[in-house]
Amino acid sequence: MMNELEQALVEKYDIHFEDEHLLLEALTQANYLNEHPEEKGDDYQRLEFLGDAVMQQSTAVYLFKRYPDWDEGRLTELRISMVQTRSFAALSRELHLDRYIRLGRGEELSGARQRDSLLEDIWEAFIGALFLDQGQAVVMDFLDKILFAKIDEGFFDQFVDYKSKLQEYLQQDGPVVIKYDKLDEKTLANNDQIFTVEVAVNDEKLAIGKGKSTKSAEKDAARTAYQQLVQTK
Amino acid sequence: MMNELEQALVEKYDIHFEDEHLLLEALTQANYLNEHPEEKGDDYQRLEFLGDAVMQQSTAVYLFKRYPDWDEGRLTELRISMVQTRSFAALSRELHLDRYIRLGRGEELSGARQRDSLLEDIWEAFIGALFLDQGQAVVMDFLDKILFAKIDEGFFDQFVDYKSKLQEYLQQDGPVVIKYDKLDEKTLANNDQIFTVEVAVNDEKLAIGKGKSTKSAEKDAARTAYQQLVQTK
Repeated sequence: MMNELEQALVEKYDIHFEDEHLLLEALTQANYLNEHPEEKGDDYQRLEFLGDAVMQQSTAVYLFKRYPDWDEGRLTELRISMVQTRSFAALSRELHLDRYIRLGRGEELSGARQRDSLLEDIWEAFIGALFLDQGQAVVMDFLDKILFAKIDEGFFDQFVDYKSKLQEYLQQDGPVVIKYDKLDEKTLANNDQIFTVEVAVNDEKLAIGKGKSTKSAEKDAARTAYQQLVQTK
Repeated sequence: MMNELEQALVEKYDIHFEDEHLLLEALTQANYLNEHPEEKGDDYQRLEFLGDAVMQQSTAVYLFKRYPDWDEGRLTELRISMVQTRSFAALSRELHLDRYIRLGRGEELSGARQRDSLLEDIWEAFIGALFLDQGQAVVMDFLDKILFAKIDEGFFDQFVDYKSKLQEYLQQDGPVVIKYDKLDEKTLANNDQIFTVEVAVNDEKLAIGKGKSTKSAEKDAARTAYQQLVQTK
């Protein structure tokens, strides 16, 4: 089992774990050890403590250097959307870490293997193990490929509530009226629907958004409007 | 002014800043720049964003390696007491950073120069600047001398509410009766008073503490009791 993971790490990311006990520790949940007293070693929690901090610093250093013109508010905002449960759970799944977790029986039965909170912990523990085994530079290279590259794909947008952000931004100097109006609704050949929505503040048009539902079109419009406003500030 | 700081860094910590603009940025508050439009450069806030994360990781890595037998709960607890406002403000004062902050006039008048929250920000910004200028290894060496060494002096105990911790610990399996009894009260030659207090749970004596007030003697007793209980767990 573990060999598959180690092989995937070598092939996709050129990562060669020296101490595979560390990798195993990162994938071992406490109750598994209770149920297997013959097993030596620790569960993932100490490595999670370490990896949590490594993720925070690695992401902060990357964003600081990549966006020299951004103020700390924008940097913090993007960091929060990157360093959080749903993002880390998605990374665990991308690396198929979920397959290799050594879980207690009760946790297995309750569906913990697919739970975001466990997959977040496991991601942090994996990064803690990688940091100890290979050092900061290898962690940064790896995150470059698997995490930072996703910024340009807009991957982290899904974790940001742009309608709230837009509202907060527009109401800085007092109350305003923000309206979302549906401009268009089309049904495609494959039966998907595409909605087009416009967002306006005090009757001034700000941006247009598209999506497969009214809600996602509104979110798209809010994101475009918010990003335009922040960039031209 | 700045030369004094740079000289102190060299003499006490063998730190030679390459780019003194970074050091200046770490010590510059936003309104100072508003009032001095002729000044180029940035305020400390981006460096604070960076230094905050560097402090988190540096401390986590140090504690993880120093205490191989501690579980993540104890590690987290000590880290929280180290990486927090009052601790960072004390470090800023120890380095006399407060003297060198370039403050706006309004902030100066309102006493911000001695405010813990500003001194915390300045400490983080200073660490961000040091990280950029000298790299992780120099930051770790520096923190070894100025921060980590204080663990053995019990410096961070002052930031921990041991009475609450003891209560939490003892009540894990249901309610208990915790009592603090004054055993003794002495007045020393210099007129200082020394109080001696005993803490007991359900009439079982746990520990004795001493202090210059009943409150500090109770805290001392709680700390001793808590640390004994956690260590023998």
